Amino acid sequence: MFTARPTRLADQDPEAGVFLLLHEIRHTPLLWLLALVPVVLIARIVAPDAHTLLFVLSVAAIVPLAALLSRATESVAAKTGDTIGGLLNATLGNLTELIIALAALRAGQYVLVKASIAGAIVTNALFMLGVSFLYGGLKHHVQEYNRNNARLQAGLLFLATIALLVPSVLAEPTGSAANARFTQTLSLGLSVLLIVTYALGLLFSLKTHREFFTGADHTEGEEVQWPLALALTTLAVVTVLVALISEVFVESVQQAATTLGLSPAFVGFIVVALVGGAAEMVSAWSAAGKNRLDLSVGIALGSAVQIALFVAPVLVLLSYVMGPTPMDLEFWRGAMAMMIIATMTASLVTNTGRSAWFIGMLVVMIYVVFALTLYLLPPRVS
Amino acid sequence: MFTARPTRLADQDPEAGVFLLLHEIRHTPLLWLLALVPVVLIARIVAPDAHTLLFVLSVAAIVPLAALLSRATESVAAKTGDTIGGLLNATLGNLTELIIALAALRAGQYVLVKASIAGAIVTNALFMLGVSFLYGGLKHHVQEYNRNNARLQAGLLFLATIALLVPSVLAEPTGSAANARFTQTLSLGLSVLLIVTYALGLLFSLKTHREFFTGADHTEGEEVQWPLALALTTLAVVTVLVALISEVFVESVQQAATTLGLSPAFVGFIVVALVGGAAEMVSAWSAAGKNRLDLSVGIALGSAVQIALFVAPVLVLLSYVMGPTPMDLEFWRGAMAMMIIATMTASLVTNTGRSAWFIGMLVVMIYVVFALTLYLLPPRVS
Amino acid sequence: MFTARPTRLADQDPEAGVFLLLHEIRHTPLLWLLALVPVVLIARIVAPDAHTLLFVLSVAAIVPLAALLSRATESVAAKTGDTIGGLLNATLGNLTELIIALAALRAGQYVLVKASIAGAIVTNALFMLGVSFLYGGLKHHVQEYNRNNARLQAGLLFLATIALLVPSVLAEPTGSAANARFTQTLSLGLSVLLIVTYALGLLFSLKTHREFFTGADHTEGEEVQWPLALALTTLAVVTVLVALISEVFVESVQQAATTLGLSPAFVGFIVVALVGGAAEMVSAWSAAGKNRLDLSVGIALGSAVQIALFVAPVLVLLSYVMGPTPMDLEFWRGAMAMMIIATMTASLVTNTGRSAWFIGMLVVMIYVVFALTLYLLPPRVS
Repeated sequence: MFTARPTRLADQDPEAGVFLLLHEIRHTPLLWLLALVPVVLIARIVAPDAHTLLFVLSVAAIVPLAALLSRATESVAAKTGDTIGGLLNATLGNLTELIIALAALRAGQYVLVKASIAGAIVTNALFMLGVSFLYGGLKHHVQEYNRNNARLQAGLLFLATIALLVPSVLAEPTGSAANARFTQTLSLGLSVLLIVTYALGLLFSLKTHREFFTGADHTEGEEVQWPLALALTTLAVVTVLVALISEVFVESVQQAATTLGLSPAFVGFIVVALVGGAAEMVSAWSAAGKNRLDLSVGIALGSAVQIALFVAPVLVLLSYVMGPTPMDLEFWRGAMAMMIIATMTASLVTNTGRSAWFIGMLVVMIYVVFALTLYLLPPRVS
Repeated sequence: MFTARPTRLADQDPEAGVFLLLHEIRHTPLLWLLALVPVVLIARIVAPDAHTLLFVLSVAAIVPLAALLSRATESVAAKTGDTIGGLLNATLGNLTELIIALAALRAGQYVLVKASIAGAIVTNALFMLGVSFLYGGLKHHVQEYNRNNARLQAGLLFLATIALLVPSVLAEPTGSAANARFTQTLSLGLSVLLIVTYALGLLFSLKTHREFFTGADHTEGEEVQWPLALALTTLAVVTVLVALISEVFVESVQQAATTLGLSPAFVGFIVVALVGGAAEMVSAWSAAGKNRLDLSVGIALGSAVQIALFVAPVLVLLSYVMGPTPMDLEFWRGAMAMMIIATMTASLVTNTGRSAWFIGMLVVMIYVVFALTLYLLPPRVS
Repeated sequence: MFTARPTRLADQDPEAGVFLLLHEIRHTPLLWLLALVPVVLIARIVAPDAHTLLFVLSVAAIVPLAALLSRATESVAAKTGDTIGGLLNATLGNLTELIIALAALRAGQYVLVKASIAGAIVTNALFMLGVSFLYGGLKHHVQEYNRNNARLQAGLLFLATIALLVPSVLAEPTGSAANARFTQTLSLGLSVLLIVTYALGLLFSLKTHREFFTGADHTEGEEVQWPLALALTTLAVVTVLVALISEVFVESVQQAATTLGLSPAFVGFIVVALVGGAAEMVSAWSAAGKNRLDLSVGIALGSAVQIALFVAPVLVLLSYVMGPTPMDLEFWRGAMAMMIIATMTASLVTNTGRSAWFIGMLVVMIYVVFALTLYLLPPRVS
């Protein structure tokens, strides 16, 4: 996420661009799910109370849109040079997660917003990373990678986890007015600190010490980048579509979860995170299979860092403008524990710069422990 | 624990075997305590209410039995080749702890069962490891060892600690029926996950990546292994004896602790763990003195891993068959804290593959802090 | 802190010594603040109720006294050879913190004593260390240092944090008499254990394994050490002055904090720690600027270790003699969390023996998160 990926450029002719898009959709089965986008929007008008149907359809429709969004962002980044491209990847890399969270924010569903933030961090740092190690390890006996980038990301994640932890630990358990004001002001201050740190981290890895982070710079050579016009148009159109579908998703999720017998905690932590991160997971795992663990670790940890240091504080700031009331950064005890464990695990596991299948298995197992616990949690908790 | 130890084989003649056993008993002062075994069984019939006497006698009688059990397991393992031998060591290596815990399980003393699980993990990861480093460091200025095995074991222990931590952290503090059902189902699921992970860990270290773990393969060359018939007979007979003595121990422990002024927490965590692990401690420390820290670290961490990923979940599964009610994996807050600290300490300390006396001193000191705290705890707590 | 620094000796003539002192005061702007010492003592008699004024004046007067104290201790240490000098530095290195805490202890202000202990550990391990890395990193692209010393200190700090954590975690939340007695006895036992460990750590680093710790042995060559007579006289006179000013400080701090709108937690953790550690901070940062990170890390972590393993337990022991009631080692939940995070951060950050500006930035940021949280805490908390 912190490194721009220069790529072979496609023809600049716009018609060729549209052809390229259609060609790519035809040859990527995942993108056939795009057909569900109009279905969701029509179903919402025709059957606004079929919550479970709308939930399943919107989940299925977001996945291909997220893939397009991620593809378009990368193409724009590739056209704009290393530094600006790195910045673009660093700010728009988790656009899907941001749009879904914004829909929940506007609806005042702060429990869902926070669950999806914590869930995205945990899912990226454990599931995306763990499956990368496991899948890569099954194809290659031992894999090595540049650990400088992994260490920077783990360090940033550690700081962010602490910043998110402090309000929950130091606040008095009593829900007094003074305490609520304290948590609110503190959350605002921490959000600014996190964004500043994120910006300084970009300065460090893209400018002053970039020579230490070149390992993550593998180019997926075989991938043809889109022309700028097509990439920008796709970015704009798909963002609007994701926003529309996310609204349907947020409206239906609560009732659908009850119908499907899923706890809200499970939906917020696991389902939303898997939907929002599906496109990146495919990239990370495919890179691991090609023995490019630098790239896999960069995508997985980079994405977790971006959620923690950029998406989460931006949501707090936007809640003052777009939400019914300001949102704070006080998390549920269980969410805190999961974020701390995920951070520590990612940090321990990437410490050596070497990997084998069992390391991946251990990390995935920790994620399965979390998922199982959330699945079984009695519905009233969280 | 994860590696079979090929050894020089003794004569296959059964009479020679019996002679070998008697010879060994005569020349090992620890085994003279075997004379206490019939004393305990008679005392139980003659003076069933002399709890303190029965407690002290049964503790003293278990120690030599555990040594025999461990010797017999190793001899069987040595005869059956590397892989099956590794599996045998991995499943029967903590047989004493398992039998004692089963006696407590059958009596429905789940607090004692859990304390002995947590205590065995903490005692192996801190006291057995720390004294190895300290004793080895006093005889050798700086010691080096293969850290691959230490890292695998520390990683497994980390996963297990998290798995054991999650039910306690995520469960609601209220003792509602829904919550009890949640904890019970979760504990069952986690037990299956832990055993699966343990089996995959064996696959990894004994099969797919065994070349990384050869460092722990030191053979105690001077030790003559028993013939198979003698080893299997000893295994069977001593298992029955340990089971009988363990019953006396479990019956008497509660009242004896009160009489001796020991808190139940101290007895469960410290006394049971020291008794059950005495035989392994002697092996680990003797190896450290011979500058074979690979072996010491392997025994100490391997044993902790085996308790956490094999003995504990097996006890949960067996509680459905043998216990009055199913047992869960929800631990006392203090036990959780000690297990986390022990895991982190073992992980930090074995990270470099080098050791000196002060490192061992620090680890032992942490154990002393725990033991002192448990000793002073007011009796009603735990 | 653990290593004596042999230095170029000044002339032994006592008059030259006094001249040296005056010369140093004239050329060190920080020492001009010494003029405030009589001002504080007079103001206390003239205006005993001007709490805010007395608070500000006493804070400003302690800083230059601490600098003189630290200079005198180093000069004595330099004259007495490596081992005794190392011991002197190790016991008197945080004399200012000890004297301030003693003044609070005598006044029975145990909340302030504990806050200043925790605050000194956190401030040294995060702020002093972080600014060293940041400032050094801005002047030098990448800095390397001997990580043996950093690891020893981080290990000692880890043990101390655990020892301080255990009474708070294992004690029952109810304030029963049995529980209070338990906490008190445990704190006494832990204090003895900590001091013993500290002494053994000195034995390890100054005697048995001193060759591993030579990296921290940089001499500030350009600094002329004082003659012994001057150093000892300064030590005695300044100790008395610090004790007098500390009394004014402790008397005024509570009311001044209220007037200035600062929470008592902020004053105890941040203000006292910055005042007491100002002299060492200047040394650590100046060394970092000269690319002597060994020395910076040694001062920062060594100072934190000394507070945790020497000053804190000595205060507990002295509370039996000097305090109105015995003091225990049970800390506020937030203080515990901050100490654990500071220890883990220092340990992670010094693990590689390499540093760049962003590492320092991250560490400072964690300190800022703590300071911000304490600043905003509603006054009744803590």
